[in-house]
Amino acid sequence: MSEKQSNQRKIVEPSILSGFMELLPKEQMVLTRMTDTIKKTFESYGFIPLDTPVLEKSEVLLAKSGGETAKQVYRFNKGDSDIAMRFDLTVPLARYVAQHYGELTFPFRRYHIGKVYRGEKPQKGRFREFYQCDIDIIGNGSLGIVNDAEIVSVIFSTFKALNIGAFKIMINNRKLLNGYFDYLNIENTVETLRIVDKIDKIGRENVKKELIKEINVSEEIADAVLGFLDNSGSVSDIIANLKTYEIENETFRQGLTELEAVCENIKALGVDEEYFTVNLKIARGLDYYTGTVYETLLCDYPQLGSICSGGRYDELASNYTKQSLPGVGISIGLSRLFYQLNEVGAIQYDNRCTPTEILFIPMSDTVTYTLEKATEFRNAGYSVEVYMNDGKVSKKLTYANKLGIPYAAIIGEDEMNSGVFKIKDMMSGEQFEVSSLEDAAKIIKK
Amino acid sequence: MSEKQSNQRKIVEPSILSGFMELLPKEQMVLTRMTDTIKKTFESYGFIPLDTPVLEKSEVLLAKSGGETAKQVYRFNKGDSDIAMRFDLTVPLARYVAQHYGELTFPFRRYHIGKVYRGEKPQKGRFREFYQCDIDIIGNGSLGIVNDAEIVSVIFSTFKALNIGAFKIMINNRKLLNGYFDYLNIENTVETLRIVDKIDKIGRENVKKELIKEINVSEEIADAVLGFLDNSGSVSDIIANLKTYEIENETFRQGLTELEAVCENIKALGVDEEYFTVNLKIARGLDYYTGTVYETLLCDYPQLGSICSGGRYDELASNYTKQSLPGVGISIGLSRLFYQLNEVGAIQYDNRCTPTEILFIPMSDTVTYTLEKATEFRNAGYSVEVYMNDGKVSKKLTYANKLGIPYAAIIGEDEMNSGVFKIKDMMSGEQFEVSSLEDAAKIIKK
Repeated sequence: MSEKQSNQRKIVEPSILSGFMELLPKEQMVLTRMTDTIKKTFESYGFIPLDTPVLEKSEVLLAKSGGETAKQVYRFNKGDSDIAMRFDLTVPLARYVAQHYGELTFPFRRYHIGKVYRGEKPQKGRFREFYQCDIDIIGNGSLGIVNDAEIVSVIFSTFKALNIGAFKIMINNRKLLNGYFDYLNIENTVETLRIVDKIDKIGRENVKKELIKEINVSEEIADAVLGFLDNSGSVSDIIANLKTYEIENETFRQGLTELEAVCENIKALGVDEEYFTVNLKIARGLDYYTGTVYETLLCDYPQLGSICSGGRYDELASNYTKQSLPGVGISIGLSRLFYQLNEVGAIQYDNRCTPTEILFIPMSDTVTYTLEKATEFRNAGYSVEVYMNDGKVSKKLTYANKLGIPYAAIIGEDEMNSGVFKIKDMMSGEQFEVSSLEDAAKIIKK
Repeated sequence: MSEKQSNQRKIVEPSILSGFMELLPKEQMVLTRMTDTIKKTFESYGFIPLDTPVLEKSEVLLAKSGGETAKQVYRFNKGDSDIAMRFDLTVPLARYVAQHYGELTFPFRRYHIGKVYRGEKPQKGRFREFYQCDIDIIGNGSLGIVNDAEIVSVIFSTFKALNIGAFKIMINNRKLLNGYFDYLNIENTVETLRIVDKIDKIGRENVKKELIKEINVSEEIADAVLGFLDNSGSVSDIIANLKTYEIENETFRQGLTELEAVCENIKALGVDEEYFTVNLKIARGLDYYTGTVYETLLCDYPQLGSICSGGRYDELASNYTKQSLPGVGISIGLSRLFYQLNEVGAIQYDNRCTPTEILFIPMSDTVTYTLEKATEFRNAGYSVEVYMNDGKVSKKLTYANKLGIPYAAIIGEDEMNSGVFKIKDMMSGEQFEVSSLEDAAKIIKK
């Protein structure tokens, strides 16, 4: 369009909806690399990629949920359809497995990295659109307990690979808590779990008060509950101690057997006790979990809360099928994790704003030759960019600096004629003469 | 929950909205690998990852569009917000660049692989949610013509890497058409372009009729237009022939200069004429393009139409800023491409339904040892799964077969004690004894 038309056009102020995350290249590069790492780790354990629609039928997506979740859901009509945006990746998984039950091979191990939507009140670190990274293993009728250990191994490998500092995976088994509450003749175990789960937030005294007031237990029983949660020490200490409890309760015994098996297999999978522990206080809020539960803390930033949580459930898809589909899985709330890490300064930026590893800068008469060189380097596996616009050499080097491109090479007539050119390390300023890809491989650090 | 509760619960029939794509593992594996390949190729040219919200303010997203697009947009209210789902990745790019203009380094080269939404009438091969894979290079005020050549190099590398058969990239320059129409004294060039663009769909005769009827040109002029479009042969033939046109028209001359420069640089970038051609009939429907335009055909499946299109535009973001932001870019409609390739049988399935390369099958007493082995192999870069559920060995091998896992290894007591086990090639049935990662590396084909 002509300049005139452009000036007449109404300019709309560019902005995005509040509560949505959008990053500049430097930050986006880090988040993209984190996503790549998570994907690669999930795949190294043989989890299958799954992708489901962001939009689902409201009646299907909201088959179970009520209360808070339903209020937060983005829901609207288009044509005859009552449409809802997914608010997690678990409900679509349940729907998918029930719908395609006959076409899937079990155990069905899937990972899903995708955006989910919750129209909650915008607040610091809470987003209305955010990435979740989930893995789940779904059995057909039954699912061996070793799977619960493998999940810990996946969490371990993922956070090792993400390289965001020391972390601790905390595991528990709800059957232990339920069995013990049962043994104490506490009737409302679901509500008791909910109160107990708040202990790190509200403290021991308040948990005790709530137990007495809301569960209607005696002070003695409340103390017994708190005493039970206090079990600590090494994994073998805790398990040995739990074994001394003389409790004739099948659920408790099952929980203890499961926890012991999980811990043994976690070690076999090469996860050291430096990275995991048994924590009887972990209960998880959701009524959904039935056995093993997980939370993960960053040791240097415990204030971030659990950055990766999940657990074992008996029935994945009871809203969609009568098939018994037990499973175990975890979720990483990646957008929130990234935001929080960024806020506390835990992200190491290397100033890289682009995947480009080498910037080739041609002089005006060496463009063709430089493009050929760039293709040669690209074919050898490098990420290569050719600066293709007019300007002074200094401006072009500034471009490399601004984008944090680690290497640059100026190709003039001499370089073209001799086939020898210099690669400059943009960080150190050092220059290296290269005349072949082999030379370059010695200089360029991947 | 208990069996009883589960039976009492109302079962909702699991299904998805019509017009949405959802794949089973075998197909999803292929689509995920295609996406990985496209991403890797885009990054090898130094394009920066960009991610923008799927939901935008309606007033911002729909600043320009009217007519068909606006009708198709998913738009709804939540709280005080008038929200629209993005229908392409170009409008969000324009909004992003205008909004973050001061924080970006130009030329700004970004790629974006993401889902977009159009509530169009469901029909075969058309989806309401689909992936687009876009690259664009945005200049600040100006952008060198070499960039137009690089885009062709990216298309070339992408489709080479996707390995979906022979393809041809067709390029043209709108200035040639506009200049020539101008020279013929055709006034309504936009409408003429629109008619000419349909030539492969409706044929020469119908284009001629429409030109005469709707543009109101003489039969002679219509013939001149068609004759011009007929220019064919090698790239140098076409350019040489165009040079013989004695046309005193600045736009035409500019178009020819640009086309020649683009073609020269395409060759320097290592793209052979086997893969690209000049096709003067390529006009592209959108009024948005101002110079170079691209389309890409699969030689064995020309009926699929262009699978990758784009072009040069003078003003990316005139709805959002007065800054002049010229750019050049292309888009691959990946969901549609995958669907079409699948329909014509152009996708080679290797039966792989999982990233797993080796399935380790422990006997009951070797679980711990097998988990250790699995970790060893995983740390060496293999994608490894341990079959962790009860059952007969034959059932476990069936699992490997069903998922198309290429290798399996049964670890019994003998294997554990000797440290020597057999890796079975599930395709050929051959077995190989291995006692180290080095042995395994000789057998397992990546």
